[in-house]
Amino acid sequence: MQIVILAGGVGGSKFVLGVRRAYPTAELAVIANTADDITLHGLRICPDLDTIMYTLGGGADSGRGWGRDDESWRVMEELACYGAEPTWFSLGDRDVGTHLVRTQMLDAGYPLSEVTTALCSRWLASDARLRLLPMTDDRVETHVTIADSEAPGQVRAVHFQEYWVRLQAAPDARGVTLLGIETARPAPGVIEAIQGADLILLAPSNPVVSIGPILAVPGLRDAVQHAPALVVGFAGILGGAPVLGMAHRLLPAIGVEVDAAAVGLHYGARSRGGVLDAWAMDSADTSSADRVQQGGLLAVVTDLLMRDPASTAAFIRYAIKSATS
Amino acid sequence: MQIVILAGGVGGSKFVLGVRRAYPTAELAVIANTADDITLHGLRICPDLDTIMYTLGGGADSGRGWGRDDESWRVMEELACYGAEPTWFSLGDRDVGTHLVRTQMLDAGYPLSEVTTALCSRWLASDARLRLLPMTDDRVETHVTIADSEAPGQVRAVHFQEYWVRLQAAPDARGVTLLGIETARPAPGVIEAIQGADLILLAPSNPVVSIGPILAVPGLRDAVQHAPALVVGFAGILGGAPVLGMAHRLLPAIGVEVDAAAVGLHYGARSRGGVLDAWAMDSADTSSADRVQQGGLLAVVTDLLMRDPASTAAFIRYAIKSATS
Repeated sequence: MQIVILAGGVGGSKFVLGVRRAYPTAELAVIANTADDITLHGLRICPDLDTIMYTLGGGADSGRGWGRDDESWRVMEELACYGAEPTWFSLGDRDVGTHLVRTQMLDAGYPLSEVTTALCSRWLASDARLRLLPMTDDRVETHVTIADSEAPGQVRAVHFQEYWVRLQAAPDARGVTLLGIETARPAPGVIEAIQGADLILLAPSNPVVSIGPILAVPGLRDAVQHAPALVVGFAGILGGAPVLGMAHRLLPAIGVEVDAAAVGLHYGARSRGGVLDAWAMDSADTSSADRVQQGGLLAVVTDLLMRDPASTAAFIRYAIKSATS
Repeated sequence: MQIVILAGGVGGSKFVLGVRRAYPTAELAVIANTADDITLHGLRICPDLDTIMYTLGGGADSGRGWGRDDESWRVMEELACYGAEPTWFSLGDRDVGTHLVRTQMLDAGYPLSEVTTALCSRWLASDARLRLLPMTDDRVETHVTIADSEAPGQVRAVHFQEYWVRLQAAPDARGVTLLGIETARPAPGVIEAIQGADLILLAPSNPVVSIGPILAVPGLRDAVQHAPALVVGFAGILGGAPVLGMAHRLLPAIGVEVDAAAVGLHYGARSRGGVLDAWAMDSADTSSADRVQQGGLLAVVTDLLMRDPASTAAFIRYAIKSATS
């Protein structure tokens, strides 16, 4: 079986662990968001790709959910001593090793997809049936428009990482812009994976800044819409609040209610021009199932909390079974 | 008083510490060798500049003589896990912070001399009368020609760091080439410092790969030769062997005997087209003083072992006094 998963970082990687547990012999192609990527201190950093790679490869910090296990922060302390900005983005020493290899390969002209394959040859060697693909090799950057605290009445756009990490998503997001998205092309293998899949899953990642950018790569949404496979999405909003992250701070910027059903309807039914066949929601959102069904989607209600790979695998299997029966 | 010092890394930095101790209120301009510089893992590394900067700034490891104190090696361990070559050059985590700042500034278009000033603003802030200048902002690379172990009868050229660090100077050096030297220009301030100096000192650094490249920058040797200041050189070869490093492995490549007097005569007397007025040798080389004098140089014989800044300061003061009396 060929399974394609569209995924962000922290939630996405937990979800992929669950899919692998649920389907141990399936071919998995994980298409990851790269619109969070940022260049800091001359290093190209791909938080979602790295989180998935480290998590699947057993090298992630399980407490933080991002970055390397057994991490130290000495490079970063030095950068701060030089007054090198920014200081708000944590760069672990072990993580810097990854960024150095990536940056050097990119500078040498390799596309991000090939760099990712090279990095994964260390981490994912034990799982030959798992491929990690960036959504695009082109540069796309999510910028968030916020009120300019220094110029009343004015707005300014900041890189997603600045909004998320430095500002902790405190200012209201007035809008989200994906710089470069119009000319981005799906990375090699992305469209082919979608077209050849037996099953396509949307991880319960942030709909605005993780799944949103992936679907916004020209050609990608269309490929999902017309793929022969069943497409099942998973809600990351449980009982009106995100389980992980701060999706509630960004959904208003795209005019979507902070509600599982609203997100499912935002993705929409393939029969009505959307990308989903079925939408899995948590038991806490049982009362919204009707709204989802009225939108042309098959609503699957179950316990969606990703406690561990086994519980995640259980709800994934249940959702797929419900959607195919 | 304005003192200019031409210096390499480990020995050079110990010497500069001694000069500062000997002349606490003098204006010091240290012109450092940059022909050992190398780009590894995308990082621009300037071993001599960094060794001097860390040593003078109190951040050097006193045991190794190079790199940062309290250093760790986690970035490097990660690079090795990715199979990133080379693995023979030690890159400490704290040191990587310096290289990241430098590389980013160079990539942004700043010349090495400005980058060095920026880095030194952290390390040398407490000594406003000490300036560290790269010999040139242009790229110069020392390559060493050795027998090619894989092709009998053939030779090949390796970067100085590969010869020094990876090969531990084991193969005989057949020749030394300074790539880029013909078109290198002295860094801003270098010629002016030499012309305005009251005293010019050649540190007891490697004559082939440290002092040699500095003097080989077009215009620099000429500036020393015609400078109004007294020029005093210090032997790094004591009793026929280098105190530090492996100068004995490289001197044969330029046809100079491994002997203090021979090195002094290699630099030569200014009255005969060389760069020195006086040559300081260790007491172990007393018997060679006549040879040096016959070459037109004033020979100063004293204890040249750099045990600590105080002993170094003592022999520097003695040599200068002897040369001016």
